[in-house]
Amino acid sequence: MTSPTTPVRIALIGSGRIGQVHALSIHRAEGAVLQVVADPFVSGAEQVVARFGGRATTDALEAITADDVDAVVVASPTPTHVDLIAACLDAGKPVLCEKPIDLDITRVDGLRARAASASSVPVALGFNRRFDPHFAELHRRVTAGEVGPLEQLTITSRDPAPAPEDYIKVSGGIFRDMTIHDFDTARWFVPDVVAVTAVGLRQFSDVIAKHDDFDGAIVTLVGAGGQSVTITNSRHCAAGYDQRLEATGPLGTLSVGNVTDTLVRSSNGTSGDAGAAFQTFFLERYSQAYSAELEAFLVAVRGGEMTSPGYEDGRAALLLADAAGVSAREGRTVRVDLTA
Amino acid sequence: MTSPTTPVRIALIGSGRIGQVHALSIHRAEGAVLQVVADPFVSGAEQVVARFGGRATTDALEAITADDVDAVVVASPTPTHVDLIAACLDAGKPVLCEKPIDLDITRVDGLRARAASASSVPVALGFNRRFDPHFAELHRRVTAGEVGPLEQLTITSRDPAPAPEDYIKVSGGIFRDMTIHDFDTARWFVPDVVAVTAVGLRQFSDVIAKHDDFDGAIVTLVGAGGQSVTITNSRHCAAGYDQRLEATGPLGTLSVGNVTDTLVRSSNGTSGDAGAAFQTFFLERYSQAYSAELEAFLVAVRGGEMTSPGYEDGRAALLLADAAGVSAREGRTVRVDLTA
Amino acid sequence: MTSPTTPVRIALIGSGRIGQVHALSIHRAEGAVLQVVADPFVSGAEQVVARFGGRATTDALEAITADDVDAVVVASPTPTHVDLIAACLDAGKPVLCEKPIDLDITRVDGLRARAASASSVPVALGFNRRFDPHFAELHRRVTAGEVGPLEQLTITSRDPAPAPEDYIKVSGGIFRDMTIHDFDTARWFVPDVVAVTAVGLRQFSDVIAKHDDFDGAIVTLVGAGGQSVTITNSRHCAAGYDQRLEATGPLGTLSVGNVTDTLVRSSNGTSGDAGAAFQTFFLERYSQAYSAELEAFLVAVRGGEMTSPGYEDGRAALLLADAAGVSAREGRTVRVDLTA
Amino acid sequence: MTSPTTPVRIALIGSGRIGQVHALSIHRAEGAVLQVVADPFVSGAEQVVARFGGRATTDALEAITADDVDAVVVASPTPTHVDLIAACLDAGKPVLCEKPIDLDITRVDGLRARAASASSVPVALGFNRRFDPHFAELHRRVTAGEVGPLEQLTITSRDPAPAPEDYIKVSGGIFRDMTIHDFDTARWFVPDVVAVTAVGLRQFSDVIAKHDDFDGAIVTLVGAGGQSVTITNSRHCAAGYDQRLEATGPLGTLSVGNVTDTLVRSSNGTSGDAGAAFQTFFLERYSQAYSAELEAFLVAVRGGEMTSPGYEDGRAALLLADAAGVSAREGRTVRVDLTA
Repeated sequence: MTSPTTPVRIALIGSGRIGQVHALSIHRAEGAVLQVVADPFVSGAEQVVARFGGRATTDALEAITADDVDAVVVASPTPTHVDLIAACLDAGKPVLCEKPIDLDITRVDGLRARAASASSVPVALGFNRRFDPHFAELHRRVTAGEVGPLEQLTITSRDPAPAPEDYIKVSGGIFRDMTIHDFDTARWFVPDVVAVTAVGLRQFSDVIAKHDDFDGAIVTLVGAGGQSVTITNSRHCAAGYDQRLEATGPLGTLSVGNVTDTLVRSSNGTSGDAGAAFQTFFLERYSQAYSAELEAFLVAVRGGEMTSPGYEDGRAALLLADAAGVSAREGRTVRVDLTA
Repeated sequence: MTSPTTPVRIALIGSGRIGQVHALSIHRAEGAVLQVVADPFVSGAEQVVARFGGRATTDALEAITADDVDAVVVASPTPTHVDLIAACLDAGKPVLCEKPIDLDITRVDGLRARAASASSVPVALGFNRRFDPHFAELHRRVTAGEVGPLEQLTITSRDPAPAPEDYIKVSGGIFRDMTIHDFDTARWFVPDVVAVTAVGLRQFSDVIAKHDDFDGAIVTLVGAGGQSVTITNSRHCAAGYDQRLEATGPLGTLSVGNVTDTLVRSSNGTSGDAGAAFQTFFLERYSQAYSAELEAFLVAVRGGEMTSPGYEDGRAALLLADAAGVSAREGRTVRVDLTA
Repeated sequence: MTSPTTPVRIALIGSGRIGQVHALSIHRAEGAVLQVVADPFVSGAEQVVARFGGRATTDALEAITADDVDAVVVASPTPTHVDLIAACLDAGKPVLCEKPIDLDITRVDGLRARAASASSVPVALGFNRRFDPHFAELHRRVTAGEVGPLEQLTITSRDPAPAPEDYIKVSGGIFRDMTIHDFDTARWFVPDVVAVTAVGLRQFSDVIAKHDDFDGAIVTLVGAGGQSVTITNSRHCAAGYDQRLEATGPLGTLSVGNVTDTLVRSSNGTSGDAGAAFQTFFLERYSQAYSAELEAFLVAVRGGEMTSPGYEDGRAALLLADAAGVSAREGRTVRVDLTA
Repeated sequence: MTSPTTPVRIALIGSGRIGQVHALSIHRAEGAVLQVVADPFVSGAEQVVARFGGRATTDALEAITADDVDAVVVASPTPTHVDLIAACLDAGKPVLCEKPIDLDITRVDGLRARAASASSVPVALGFNRRFDPHFAELHRRVTAGEVGPLEQLTITSRDPAPAPEDYIKVSGGIFRDMTIHDFDTARWFVPDVVAVTAVGLRQFSDVIAKHDDFDGAIVTLVGAGGQSVTITNSRHCAAGYDQRLEATGPLGTLSVGNVTDTLVRSSNGTSGDAGAAFQTFFLERYSQAYSAELEAFLVAVRGGEMTSPGYEDGRAALLLADAAGVSAREGRTVRVDLTA
């Protein structure tokens, strides 16, 4: 670990879109420095290094084990996550890994014991929504009791447009690919979900239907305390990336609507008090969240409190996704035990 | 039928809270007059008559069959509805009857054929939400294609506080008593519902649980066209009567938030741009709807288009309520055929 | 005066647009009846009578003095107001007269002493904005001290489009014709205005400029207690009738934005959370206010508290309009004494 | 000038609150580096250097003239601005100087010719509001013609609380200290102001009154094209820093309301849809603006377009402030010629 005054030296694995986002967050953080960027396509790593400093490599393991690296950020493709987290655990290097851990629960379970036993090495999962300042403020106020014990949580989560067919094919299906974020948001408020009732929708995409997947879903979770969480998903949304949250308890309701790039509002002969359409997609909507996610990880790296979602959270989200798949296909509520 | 220039003479059955609302609507309508008010507790009828004119009686049948009565508004207790509608059909008098037709589908089905065959006698059901100007405008714009083919409808519907235990006992349960309004709203947009998935909630009321009822519910309906309707219910809400509607299709989203008594907004050291809490309950929230509901009924009475929900709509809402009860208790999706 | 249970019998003078609004308010009020409608164009009076009852006449004086008339509503052209109010005072009949009293302060002053001495006969002026439920709620909360002592009041008041040239010619100019409403609103909060600073604008209308009038104005009033009132006027507004109010004191700000016909909001690829354009003009925007104005007048007619603006308020608004004209033309602040 | 790939090396003069804001902006910018920080209180400079790198000095002139410095940011006290800008001009170093240039128009005019002739050396004035993303978007859309030719601009600008008496004494008065920002905002939309009508207010502060200053003001500007700009100022505001902008033309209105730290909204038994109070003060409200202001300056430093407000803008704002002072004291409109 490093002292507060020494910058944390970070290895970044992956230099794609998300990798570049993390590189920018590292550049902007006061107490971090980008030490090495690893990507098998080394030109991508080199471009990141040209903007933000550090050295480029094609070898992720070399980067993870390097002496001048204090911590690792994994932004490579999903199938590499389990092995890279394992390598970080071996090297004793704190790791912030993009979600999901894996699409296959057996692979996730394979590393589970080691991740748990190596509890002194922080393993943070990139469920970025927990770090959105607006959602986090809502969570803080719910936790502080402002609405009383939470009763009903409503998550609206619509993508602007479907991913290309090549991605849909390997995505693992809507529940493991898209709803998984919402499952983590749900568990942020209601960790102990006990029942999953999912309705899969086929509303607009023949391509998605062809791959036996859903283009929308309505999921109802129930927590051990009787709380309900309702998730509304769609793979398209005309106004942009629709990301809303609403929490209700006996004392009131707290909500967060869509964030827009501008607060300018317009009134004219057609409409009144019109705002901007929603932000385009996650890179815009969660830009602040990516920075805050890194800052929280840096606190844990320096030995402070670990507030990031961890390995067990990544596993629980996947379990809920699998349960939702069963529920939607069989038309029945599925009971789950996330603690087993 | 009456000519446009002759006021429609109306018999009002029932002088309780809802009866008084209808009496006021009749008073304010330009083309209607309150002719007779019937209530077994005649003093209630007399008070209404003192305010708005007409004569009082204890005998509903006498009022319905009176020669100087053109149409009937039924605002008496639910168990009387089927018989009173039947009496109106016998007398050939158009009737606007408060919902529900009955809590028992067999009683509803018993009158179904006659209600259908007497199609020249308008039977309007008091699903007032269809006449709320804001919901009606949203419906008009969805029907006009503004969002494209409807994909996802979201209904939020929370009562301010539970009814007294004496009422809960005989209410027929949350789905037949409370959600029934939302089922009708759902069918207003998606008439041909084919699947009902309901999750019953027990979140705060031991009294309601004692009567084997739910104090909240999340219901997902699917229409023949693949549309989803999500209903969020609670028997309490700190901010008042929570009544919202949101419709999404490929071209956009239309929504109606809560109506407030005042548009005054406040900013101070504690909060910014704060509006009023929601309106207290249905008498306030749907005051305009009650008037519009009567106006629409008057159009049908005068031989114009029947735009009000009718007997079949009342029956369909009850069928959905019964299906939701089965779904919630058995933890499975229930298929329905409203056309059978 | 009449007892609470006897309807107040009203003579309506004038059957134009505003006269019809008052006729509808009288019809809807529980304790009032339209007894007679007077208009030199008797067919207008007859049409109103056909809808709402009563008798038609061409003779306003006959209507005012009729034995079966308890109170008078004057909605005839401005030049008739002073004489009709005088006739009501002579007849001892409470009168609700549309604003302004007159465009000429000397004519207003001519009746001032009689209006004051006949204080047992209520003379109410139709400054309808005081009865808008939203503005009235804001006023109530300011008066109750919610923002502390009022410091800054901001009135935004834009007409949708200029009146025709024929009207502009005889309107008395923007300050006496349009701003006069805002002067009364200002005095509702700050009765004792002591200084008027007006800037007249010529922004878009050659027609208005030709008549040496302004098509917009910014007026700053200062009260005896140091309060400021800022009025922004324009003779056109693309989004409709722009009517807003904002009051600030040391403890906070209260505001009322534009009222819209519908609460439906829309999000799509172009804009987000877009509401309706503003209401068209005063008949729509102040429809509730006209009813409330009549209800308040009925209270005074029945001997209750007189809460309506009265003769002195009508005079004060005209004095401020005249002062604003001087200020705008001479480029200087004009001191006024409304109590002289 | 530097090439796009070489970071611009910056000397920062002043390490107080604003200096630290600029240091953070420099740290976060991709193409800039903090080279030297100068402050006579060298410990302040040393603290900034410890966070963001560079060297500390007590000697501003040494910093400005250093060979390894490409550009200068001046964040020292107002009386030093003229001399420091002059030194930058002498050294041929682009400078971004905090507003105002000086409180004395004769000192500003003294450097005017040199600032104009050295046009190859960018002199940017720190009127940060032009770089607020929301105000800038509104400006962009007005300039693009969305509302048609601008007619009425409304600026609401209230500080959260008065500065301490020691500051008030030397502030130059409300118009030169506070309204000066609003004058620049006004000129951003309407550069050629021709008339100033100001009403000074004394509403709450005996301290401010004691120094013959105003604690609030209403200022109306008129542009050469007949446009109006209305500025509402107060030295206190319960809800925080009140910063709003509204622009109206024949085609519509565009507005920007207050920015809040969080989008969480709350509904409960007391209020509905309540947002957060406004941000505390300028450091929070304009944090994005400070970064964007630096980015725009860097573009000019690199030889790109100069989009920042410059020396003439700083002078014009001061001229309007002086005219407002005359107007408020003498109760008359003051004509100005900003081009003379």
